[in-house]
Formats: sequence, C-alpha cells, structure tokens
Amino acid sequence: MPETAWETLSRAMAEIRALSGASALLQWDQETYMPPKGSGARGDQLAAIQGAQHERLTAPPVAEALARAEAERTADPDRAAALRVLRFDHDRAARIPGDLVRAIAQAQAAGVDAWKAARDTGDFGRFAPALERLLALRREQASAYGAPAGGEPYDALLEGYEPGMRVARLEPLFARLVSWLVPLVEKVTARPPPDDAFLRGRFDPEQQWQFTLELLDAVGFDREAGRQDRSIHPFSLGLDPGDVRVTTRIFEDLPLSAIFSTLHEAGHGLYEQHLPAELRRSVLCAAPSMGLHESQSRLWENLVGRSLPFWRAFLPRLARRFPALEGVSPEVFFRAVNRVERSLVRVEADEVTYNLHIVLRFELELALLRGKLAVKDLPEAWDARSERLLGVRPAAARDGVLQDIHWAWGELGYFPTYTLGNLYAASLFAAARRGVPGLDDELGKGNLRPLLGWLAEHVHRIGRRKEAEDIVRDATGNGLGDRDFEAYLTEKYGA
Amino acid sequence: MPETAWETLSRAMAEIRALSGASALLQWDQETYMPPKGSGARGDQLAAIQGAQHERLTAPPVAEALARAEAERTADPDRAAALRVLRFDHDRAARIPGDLVRAIAQAQAAGVDAWKAARDTGDFGRFAPALERLLALRREQASAYGAPAGGEPYDALLEGYEPGMRVARLEPLFARLVSWLVPLVEKVTARPPPDDAFLRGRFDPEQQWQFTLELLDAVGFDREAGRQDRSIHPFSLGLDPGDVRVTTRIFEDLPLSAIFSTLHEAGHGLYEQHLPAELRRSVLCAAPSMGLHESQSRLWENLVGRSLPFWRAFLPRLARRFPALEGVSPEVFFRAVNRVERSLVRVEADEVTYNLHIVLRFELELALLRGKLAVKDLPEAWDARSERLLGVRPAAARDGVLQDIHWAWGELGYFPTYTLGNLYAASLFAAARRGVPGLDDELGKGNLRPLLGWLAEHVHRIGRRKEAEDIVRDATGNGLGDRDFEAYLTEKYGA
Repeated sequence: MPETAWETLSRAMAEIRALSGASALLQWDQETYMPPKGSGARGDQLAAIQGAQHERLTAPPVAEALARAEAERTADPDRAAALRVLRFDHDRAARIPGDLVRAIAQAQAAGVDAWKAARDTGDFGRFAPALERLLALRREQASAYGAPAGGEPYDALLEGYEPGMRVARLEPLFARLVSWLVPLVEKVTARPPPDDAFLRGRFDPEQQWQFTLELLDAVGFDREAGRQDRSIHPFSLGLDPGDVRVTTRIFEDLPLSAIFSTLHEAGHGLYEQHLPAELRRSVLCAAPSMGLHESQSRLWENLVGRSLPFWRAFLPRLARRFPALEGVSPEVFFRAVNRVERSLVRVEADEVTYNLHIVLRFELELALLRGKLAVKDLPEAWDARSERLLGVRPAAARDGVLQDIHWAWGELGYFPTYTLGNLYAASLFAAARRGVPGLDDELGKGNLRPLLGWLAEHVHRIGRRKEAEDIVRDATGNGLGDRDFEAYLTEKYGA
Repeated sequence: MPETAWETLSRAMAEIRALSGASALLQWDQETYMPPKGSGARGDQLAAIQGAQHERLTAPPVAEALARAEAERTADPDRAAALRVLRFDHDRAARIPGDLVRAIAQAQAAGVDAWKAARDTGDFGRFAPALERLLALRREQASAYGAPAGGEPYDALLEGYEPGMRVARLEPLFARLVSWLVPLVEKVTARPPPDDAFLRGRFDPEQQWQFTLELLDAVGFDREAGRQDRSIHPFSLGLDPGDVRVTTRIFEDLPLSAIFSTLHEAGHGLYEQHLPAELRRSVLCAAPSMGLHESQSRLWENLVGRSLPFWRAFLPRLARRFPALEGVSPEVFFRAVNRVERSLVRVEADEVTYNLHIVLRFELELALLRGKLAVKDLPEAWDARSERLLGVRPAAARDGVLQDIHWAWGELGYFPTYTLGNLYAASLFAAARRGVPGLDDELGKGNLRPLLGWLAEHVHRIGRRKEAEDIVRDATGNGLGDRDFEAYLTEKYGA
C-alpha cells in the first residue's frame, strides 16, 4: 500500500526532529566535554547533520506530499497546525540555495575568527571586512526569502527567530520603552547603591554547585529528563522533552552568577521538558519563537529569582551552605540582587537597563541592513548611542561594539527577541498571579509548582500549535506590549 | 564545472565519516551522561543518522560515481584503496533491503528485552522465540549478501566484522588452539593458586580513578584528543583521530577491574588516535577489522599490562596511592594478576582460558546458522561444550548460555574476532620486541613510547589501506596463526 501524503510527512518530521536532537547533543558536547582536538571534526559532523535535515525538509517527495496534504481537508487541528509549520519551514529552507548556505557557514567561521582577533587587539578594523561579507550574505538571504507582507528585508531575517514579528511593530514599541526606561534609570541610579558587602568573599564552588541543583529541583526541573553540567557560557538545549541539557558556570568570588545562570537556563529547560511529548516526532514539539522561549528564562531568572518572596524561601537554604550569609535579611539580600547601574556590558546588565542595550543593537543592525549605516562607521555609532541610551561611553571596543558574538555569526534580527522575552515574561507572570490565587504566598514558601503548572498549561504544552503572540494573548488577554513590564519595574524600582 | 566522479565520492565519504562520528557521540552519551528519560528519543536519533549514512552510501549518484571512478585508472594508491573499500561497503549496504534493516532493528530491540527477562528469571525459554526470529533474519541477511567466494552463509556475516576471514580457516585454527590450550589449562590449574590476599580490601575510588588517568598518560593516550569517563560497561569509541572516548568502571573492592579496563580501552583508543588523520574525511580512516582492533586492546591489557616489566615500573606508582601494597614485590603482584582458573564467565576469564570460551560460542553459532542445532537445544549444547572445553558446567543459564548480550543483538560472527585479536596481539608484540631493541627494558622503566611508536607505524597509521591480515603479515612476517600466542602462553605459564 503506498504511503499517504500525511504518512510521508510524518516520517520526514520524525527524522527532522531526531536529527535536530542529534545536532543539539553535538553542540552540548562541544561546550561541555569535547576534547580540544575534536573541534575540526565537530564542524563536519554538525554540517552533515544539518545537511541531512535540510534534505529531509526540501526533498521533492516531501514537497509533493506537503502540497497534496494541504489540498486535502483535515478536521484534526494538530495536523492543520503541523501543515502550517511545515509549509513555513519548507519554504524558508527551499528558498535558500545550497551555495548560499555554504557561503554563510564559511563567512560565519571567518567572522568568529576575525571577531576574536579584533576583540583581543581592540581593533574593530580587523573585524570589519568579515562583517561586511556577512552583511552582504544576509542581504542576499533576506532577498531570497523575500520580504514578508508589509515588511522590509530585516523582517525576512527577524522571521527566522520570531515568526510574524515586524520592524513596523518593534520601532514604536521600542520608542515607548525608551521613553519611560531612560527616566527610570535616571531616578534609580540617583539613589545610593544597596549594600552588598556580604556578597564579597569566597564561596565554595562545590557548595555553589549543590545549591544550583537544589534550585533545579525546587523549580521542578526533572533531572531524570535532563541534566546540568558546567560550561564557559551557560546555555540550554532540548534534545527531546525527555532529555534537556542545561549548563551553568561557577565563580568562587561571584556567588550570584551560578544562581542566576541556573535559574535562567532552568526557565528554558522547563519549557523544553513540558513541550507536548505526545507530539515528540512532530515539528510542533518546539517553541514557536525565540522571544517566547526567552520569556521563560527571564521569568524564572528575574520575576521569580529576583523577587522578595523567592528569597524569603531560599535565603535560609543558601545560608545553610554559606554561614557568612546568616545575618542577612531577605529584604537586604533582595535589594542586593537588584542593584541597578549604568553599565557597558549587556550580559552583566540589570533588568532595568537591559532593554536599552537591546534597543541600541536593534537600531544599529536595522541601519546596517537598510544601508543607512556603513560598517566602518559602526563603532562611532555604537558609542554615541551608548551615551544617549545608557549614559556611558565605552573606553574600549571590547566593552562596546565588539562585546557580543552575535554579529560575528552574522545573526541580524536576533537581539530584539531578548526584549520580547522580557515583555512576554512580565505579561505572563502578571497573568499567572491573577490566575493562581495565593501565588506569591506559595513562592514565599518555596513552592514553585503552582507557577510551573500554570506556565506548562498556558505556554509550554502548546508547542508550535500557535504563534507566540497568540499564545501570550490567550494566556494573558493581551498581545505584545510593555504595560505589564512597565508596571512591574515601576512597582519594584519606582518607589 | 560539474563534479568529477572522485569529487562526488569524496563528498559522500566525508559525510559518511562525519555522520559516523556523530553516531559514535550519541552512543557514548547514551552510556555516560544521558538522563534516563532520554532513551526513547535516542533510538530515533541513532536510526535517523544511520539512515542518512546508508543513503549517502547507496544513493544512485554515488553508485554511478563509484562505477565511473573504478573505470578510470589511478596512480594514487590511497585512491585505489578507498575505491576498494567503498565498493565493499557500498555493495554490502545496497544488497540489504530497507525492510530487512528495519526488521532486524526491531528484532534486536525485542531480543535485548527478551534476553534480559530470560536472564533475570533464568528461563532460556523466554529468550528462545526472539533468538529464533533473529537467526531467521540473519539467514535472510546472509543470503542477501551472498556467500563470499569459497564460503558459506556464516562467512557472509563474519565478513561484516572481519573482511576476508572464512569459516574454512577458523575451524582448523580453533581446533589447533583447543589441542594445546586444554592441556595447558590442565597443567596450570593443577598448581596451587597464587597469593592475592593483598588485593582484598577497600581501594579508594578517587585514587583508582587518578591511577587510571596516570596509566592513560603513560601509554601515550592524548587527553587533548580524547577523554575517559565512567560507564557500567567499559567501551571505546572514536569520533575522529582528534576525539576518542574511552570509559572505565571502578569497584571499591576490585582494584584490578579499573586498571585492566582502562588499559584495554586505551589500546582501542590509541589505535583510533593514530589512524591516518590526513585521511580523516575518507573511509580509509578506520580499522580494517574488529580482530585487528581487538589486537590492540589485548596487547595493552595482557601482553603489556599483565607482564612483569610493566609492574616493575607501575607497582611503585600504584603503591604510592595504596600503601597497603607497599610490601608486595612486582613478582608476587605479577603472579596475582595472572591467576588462571576454570571459570564460567567469559568476561572474567584469564588469558589462558579465554579463547576456549570463544571456541564454544563459535561452534554453537556456526551450528545454529548451518541448521545443525535448534535454538531449543542450545542450552544443553552450551553446557556440554562448557564441560568439554572448560571442565565446568554452569549451574544457571545466567552464567551459561545467557551470559552474553551479543546473541540478543543477533550478532553472529562477532565472537571469533576476540580470538583473532589475541592471536594478532601475540604476533605483533613478538615482532615489536624483535623490531625495537631493548623494548623490555623500556617497559621495565615505564617507558611505553617505543612500543606505541612501533604499533602506530606498523598498524594504526595504515587505516583501511590494507586488509587486517596483510597489515599483520607486513608487520610480523606471518599472517594469521597461533604460534606466537602459543609461545607466549607457554613461556609465561608453562614453566
């Protein structure tokens, strides 16, 4: 009996999912256990798997089956959703010629090398030619995709991270954000900084590690369906809802680093663990956007992990491991982990200034792609915007235009998703507090399960059945916006 | 410009190698770090990668390019060797229909489940139907391959592990082995057992682990191009010459277990690290047979690791970690690690009795495949042969016919390669002693580099450019045989 169109697609989807899980493992290993001399072969391995994935998605029999399945009527909403997602993924993959994919991969490798050399020497000129090459290739890629309805080339790239999002919505949204964030930063930084002397000193790495495991268990991360390891840059990767890897990093003299890294990555990890396991072989078993994914990490890191109720519950546990903290009150600790300052480096920024770092990057990459800014003028444009938005000017390119790896990878359109994550997080957390009576009391008792249950139901278990903003709208009553975020920051820092 | 046939093949080979490296990593992770709930998806991931490998090897453009490249003349011996190997691999892969591959994979999974249930209950009957199914599928597979020239169906399976080897050569060879091994066992076991009271007690696991790392460094295993981890069953896997994983296991009350596991797997690992890196994207960057691979693990485990010179050098280092061993002389320790006894379980057997365990399995699987033995009669046949060859009769199937997992995977033709490994190891070690003046003295000083250099030159760096027996013949002056092994055991245990 010949396969039906849907059977062909189901087989292709299962293989795509399996290959993407394999690819995730290779990346995880690369950052955790791979011996140094393994890196050459690792590039080949990842490229071979990604090539096989691309083939599964774009092979003529799959394209034909997709067209046939779309022509049939289906009463199954999951099937209809899978067809929509497959069409989206297929068309994007099919529009990019193999030569361009290879050229981008090469330019990325060259970009990272050039960026490292530039960063080490502080000489942006060593990175500029590679960035120009990447920019040209991304323009070519955007043109191959074609701008989405009502959009511009940047939108075609943005679509790869945040389907459905448009520059036309981000620009006014970000302008609004700037309009109230800048005065808020002004106000908060005018006050004397909170006391955090008790965070200076040595904090035993093994005790830090054990506390992060305690946190993973407390937030409900299932360590039978995942694990935590160490890496230089913390990250999370889901191979399958049953196999989710998170990492953290531990500095003996910076105890907050491991704690907030773990909470951040646990947020991503919880999302991956609660994706719809019944659809584990379907393209629907994934998050619909980077912004929604980031909302989960930000929610656990900031809305939960930097809240007073959380530290009412967890400071005593932390102090059991570090007796130097025994005299510190939750209120004092809470203020110390919420210190706001004008700083140069995004990854160290607090939750008030963070989005200003993102606006800066968004404006610059948009100008680059629109051809309104030349690569050679990027450092000066960076520094000027940093002064305007953050009130500080980098002394060295390493702390300025060369601080992030994203552009070295040619990632244009990615940065805005961090801010979308912050906005979605605030909206979802506000809705959870409305939806779960006594949520704050439970947090204060260290019981994080009611929150997880609400998020799993309203976000995680939906997978890619809906688009990100629709998930947020159904969960909160509103689509993308900054009202909940403004209310959250104003309540927390305004007084 | 269109690709040449050789370019098409080179690209296919590079992808096959890369996918096989990826597959090795998935297997490594499965036995070391994978969380328990990851196992379902892992099966899908491995199947998807193996499917992609199969496709790369058998796709019509590759088959055509292979035929075209064969028709051209080449003066490059590496290219000629790669074409020979590709032809061998391609034909074997192309002859097996996809349905049979899937049926075997399913029967293997069912086989392992049934075997575990049978072993736990001691009831062979619970395994028999699954084994019958696997046997039928392997017969079908052998028939799809076609018996090699001058061979029988068993040879078609044997060929998958030991290309070029034939039952017609193994039968007389194994008969000769039995003819002198059985009397040797008789003679050695008639003596009182050596003193090994000092091996009883508790040996700190962390100190054991550190000693195994010391051993890895001493034998020349490059830990920048590989790593050791722990697993329940020790194994080794090469992703690339720059990325080789070995594992060991540590029992607090069995200090020899970790030591000899590490030496065994290091032998495999050294082979993988010294494969021809300049051919890392070619099918030639691999060992030509399982037997030759095993020769390297046996050589380091037994010929080196169970020798007196080795313990002259390493017992003082071991005693520094375990002061209880301080009064023990190298001679006494040497005798203790070479205790010979009639035992039931292959994986615990000493080097004298070990090959009798293999002969037993070879005879039985050959009889099964020839249709001379029914699965239901296997337990009785096992016990009778055990009595004849080893002089012991299992009290329970768990220590008899159900002890190995190999048949549960339907692996028929694999066991003989263990004995080939032992024979090749003895011949190669004898040749190394002839070829490297003062080798024993260097071993006695703990300098293992001259031996590794000889093996790398004469075995490892050849890869699949030649067949296993040709490599051994070129290195030693002789092909497969038991003379060197007999001389080694007779000298060591005869007196």
